[in-house]
Amino acid sequence: MIAAWLEDGRLSFRDDRPEPTGGAGEALIRVTAAGICATDLAMLGGYRPFTGIPGHEFAGVVEQGPPEWVGARVVGEINITCAGHAARNPADAPASVVGVGAGEGPCPACRAGRSTHCERRTAIGIFGRDGAFAQRLALPVGNLHRLPAEICDEAAVFVEPLAAAFRILEQVEVAPSTRALVVGPGRLGQLVARVLRTMGCAPIVTGRSAPGLTRLSTLGFEAVRAGEIDHGAFDIAVDCTGHPSGFGTARAALRAGGTLVLKSTYPERVEIDASSLVVDEIRLLGSRCGPFPVAIEALAHGTVEVLDLIDDRFPLAEVVAAYDRAAQPGVAKVLLTP
Amino acid sequence: MIAAWLEDGRLSFRDDRPEPTGGAGEALIRVTAAGICATDLAMLGGYRPFTGIPGHEFAGVVEQGPPEWVGARVVGEINITCAGHAARNPADAPASVVGVGAGEGPCPACRAGRSTHCERRTAIGIFGRDGAFAQRLALPVGNLHRLPAEICDEAAVFVEPLAAAFRILEQVEVAPSTRALVVGPGRLGQLVARVLRTMGCAPIVTGRSAPGLTRLSTLGFEAVRAGEIDHGAFDIAVDCTGHPSGFGTARAALRAGGTLVLKSTYPERVEIDASSLVVDEIRLLGSRCGPFPVAIEALAHGTVEVLDLIDDRFPLAEVVAAYDRAAQPGVAKVLLTP
Repeated sequence: MIAAWLEDGRLSFRDDRPEPTGGAGEALIRVTAAGICATDLAMLGGYRPFTGIPGHEFAGVVEQGPPEWVGARVVGEINITCAGHAARNPADAPASVVGVGAGEGPCPACRAGRSTHCERRTAIGIFGRDGAFAQRLALPVGNLHRLPAEICDEAAVFVEPLAAAFRILEQVEVAPSTRALVVGPGRLGQLVARVLRTMGCAPIVTGRSAPGLTRLSTLGFEAVRAGEIDHGAFDIAVDCTGHPSGFGTARAALRAGGTLVLKSTYPERVEIDASSLVVDEIRLLGSRCGPFPVAIEALAHGTVEVLDLIDDRFPLAEVVAAYDRAAQPGVAKVLLTP
Repeated sequence: MIAAWLEDGRLSFRDDRPEPTGGAGEALIRVTAAGICATDLAMLGGYRPFTGIPGHEFAGVVEQGPPEWVGARVVGEINITCAGHAARNPADAPASVVGVGAGEGPCPACRAGRSTHCERRTAIGIFGRDGAFAQRLALPVGNLHRLPAEICDEAAVFVEPLAAAFRILEQVEVAPSTRALVVGPGRLGQLVARVLRTMGCAPIVTGRSAPGLTRLSTLGFEAVRAGEIDHGAFDIAVDCTGHPSGFGTARAALRAGGTLVLKSTYPERVEIDASSLVVDEIRLLGSRCGPFPVAIEALAHGTVEVLDLIDDRFPLAEVVAAYDRAAQPGVAKVLLTP
């Protein structure tokens, strides 16, 4: 089949990849649309050593698998956890390469209900497992979520990053009176601002990307230059930049007792004034994957708009050009269609 | 009166300090016992520019003030907030040097019920206001808490740091099954370990101070060398060291989704792997002042033992020697008696 291929941090288009073979409890999914995100771009630079098919934001149709799933339009959670490994490797099977041996139970994180932190997890297109920039991919059916008819394939590509943005609402209380700041109006910041607004508050956005700020201004958000932010005024600041300067902007904006949400990974280490975190009792929260059902509901009900974020579309055969386009400043989402 | 005196980071004993004059709504307290803490020692090195009488851990007796308070054995909260300023400066008084002018309301933090973060606060012996290493000090009566007879003066000196340790329980859920690590068995770490144990869990302690670890081992705590800590095993790690290495030890010990409590201020900046905080969804919590009533109750009921932490006692006239003693490795609490 055709697929994107990542090896030694270099991306190529290949037409010779073998079709994935779904194991027991897995579905074979035909990809109908996929999206390029910052993690995909960072992996070009060697953010993670990964050889395989990249991509983890997708929508598709189940072609093979348990009968109740065949024909379903789906999106899929990206982490394959103990439950997914076990389904593929029932206890009567021999010990397996994917990490869960015969008779082994789930890891402590899965047992405690924190399966997004599964100690044996793989993540499609990121580590340990082929991803979605391909004609087909295989996933445990436990990872799948059905798409309602109200959500088109292109919007469905946003379910995964939108769920990550909704994760914040599981970690921090946001009310209409909450003073929230979003630092970095890029792909994720766009979604974070919109998600915060679903709680009735009016988040302010800041950052270096003029197109990103304009995009949010158009939707009625107040966009402010970093130098104009009220220091110590915000209850919550979400850093979506992944840069120390963004961290600094978010930190300075917080009131005592405020919450700094770290929503992007940082390519470099960050130096912090830990004393000020103590004196001001600041709370820092790392925030990663979120609830797919909540994101699906928001898209189905139109609570969060995403289609304006699509800046370009490429066929899978032009994946290298698509990455180049996605890496341009101010570009939000670039889609791939196999 | 006699008092310790701090000026340009240098400590001296003085017998010529004027008696404090309590304003309206304030009590004049005769200090019966006081304790030296890490903040006091750090101020010798210029941690904060402060000229005045140091000291904020104390017990005493109200000598003058509102009749219902005179004669009461008390401890006092260290932050003088909008409420305390306003009591001293009623609305019909002229605008005052202490920060709240005629007719001004409380600051946003006080209005929101977060008075420990009052924007106009002073803190006795730390900034803006004379402290407790003296024969007498003045405090707004709103800062005072009565001492029950079960708590002797020497134990009462621990109310303030013990309240700071109890602050953690307001910020993090601790259950009997919680795997907790305390890094740094110094003055504060001693109290933190004991406070965590009141929730029925069995915190493990680590750090460089052999005497500190021995002290906790004697009380039945499991003490472990930093190199022997299970990485990724703990739900909560409390860094009481104020050093980047202690931060690193605490971070490495946490499971995904775990909580790192920063309980000490850090003289230097700390470099962090912010990406790992995101990927592992770590929560960092700065933690400062805590609930006096909870600490008083714990001492009154003997839930937390503190008297074993007193390593030495000095008369106020020997305050310089007392600081030297308190700065020796492995020494926990040194008391001063005026």
